[in-house]
Amino acid sequence: MSHPVNQAKFISFEGTEGVGKTTAIDLLCQRLDKTGTDYVRTREPGGSDFAEKLRELLLDTATNIFDDTELLLMFAARSDHLAKVVLPALEAGKWVVCDRFIDSTVAYQGYGRGMGDPIMLSKIDSLIAHFVPRLPDITLWLDLPVQEGMRRAGKRSVADRFEQQKTAFFERVYQGFSEQYQAQPTRIHRVDAHGTAEEVAERIWVIVSQ
Amino acid sequence: MSHPVNQAKFISFEGTEGVGKTTAIDLLCQRLDKTGTDYVRTREPGGSDFAEKLRELLLDTATNIFDDTELLLMFAARSDHLAKVVLPALEAGKWVVCDRFIDSTVAYQGYGRGMGDPIMLSKIDSLIAHFVPRLPDITLWLDLPVQEGMRRAGKRSVADRFEQQKTAFFERVYQGFSEQYQAQPTRIHRVDAHGTAEEVAERIWVIVSQ
Repeated sequence: MSHPVNQAKFISFEGTEGVGKTTAIDLLCQRLDKTGTDYVRTREPGGSDFAEKLRELLLDTATNIFDDTELLLMFAARSDHLAKVVLPALEAGKWVVCDRFIDSTVAYQGYGRGMGDPIMLSKIDSLIAHFVPRLPDITLWLDLPVQEGMRRAGKRSVADRFEQQKTAFFERVYQGFSEQYQAQPTRIHRVDAHGTAEEVAERIWVIVSQ
Repeated sequence: MSHPVNQAKFISFEGTEGVGKTTAIDLLCQRLDKTGTDYVRTREPGGSDFAEKLRELLLDTATNIFDDTELLLMFAARSDHLAKVVLPALEAGKWVVCDRFIDSTVAYQGYGRGMGDPIMLSKIDSLIAHFVPRLPDITLWLDLPVQEGMRRAGKRSVADRFEQQKTAFFERVYQGFSEQYQAQPTRIHRVDAHGTAEEVAERIWVIVSQ
């Protein structure tokens, strides 16, 4: 039986489509419930009322916006989410479990849409440096080959603007996560996402409960 | 009689409330019409369909957002406006006459709301450096004492979120314009906004037609 966890932690989950983030977060939250750990479960883009409004704009397939605009909206939403949800929860001693955070921006906007363009990556770095006052303590990168994730995700029904993209796009996104992991191995933990949900959950708990 | 003006110019109008920007822009546009100069008249925040949507969010008195979020939304709107309106017009050889641009962000968000906080100013500088690929060729700062502008503006009926602010706020905004002018005297031209609309228009035309 796990012991209660005392110090508030900010945990983000990252990965390409179909790696099992939602289930992994479900199981982590069950575990936190069992250990009596107070937490807030949230997500990006979105996570606060105003950020969810912006998320709707971002995911609307009818909205034709340029990369810079999308990036700035992402950070506007993130800024609201941080100020109204993440930081207050951490200050109140609660854990924060967040589905996607800054690394998804680097991977999707920087590597996926931005093709790894150094100018785009420097824009993202600058936004993180100026507008993200608190990084996650632990980022869990659920690592699964893109093709396998897409097979899993294919079972789901609704395809939004981000999910309509092609395999080459997701390969670049994967490369983005991989390079972020290599650059920040202290914060980012690679989690093998093969196997059953329970196996993955156990790998995650080993990291989180340390 | 003025001669036709050949080279496309990007002109922004700046100033505190009530200095007569709208009338000055009306009269400049009449003059451009007379000289057969093709131009686009636009404004910020807003100026493109998507940016106008964001403008509504920004000016909504019910929206309670933090300074960082407002700033990022401003630049998201600006990015869309630049990509869809300003840059295409300039590339097509048209002039662009814009009611407010980057200097209003520095003055209102940086000095007005941000109290001149160096961290806020560096955030704005960083956003301009990364997300504004084209600065105005000429910025016309309509200079009038704050109290006199507020008396003029008081005649107007609707007060939006920005216009509800107090005198001390506008004094800081004025300081922001003044410091921008001193820092970038090549781009920014100070225009004495005292006198009749025609007198101000003439001062502006002298600068613009050079």
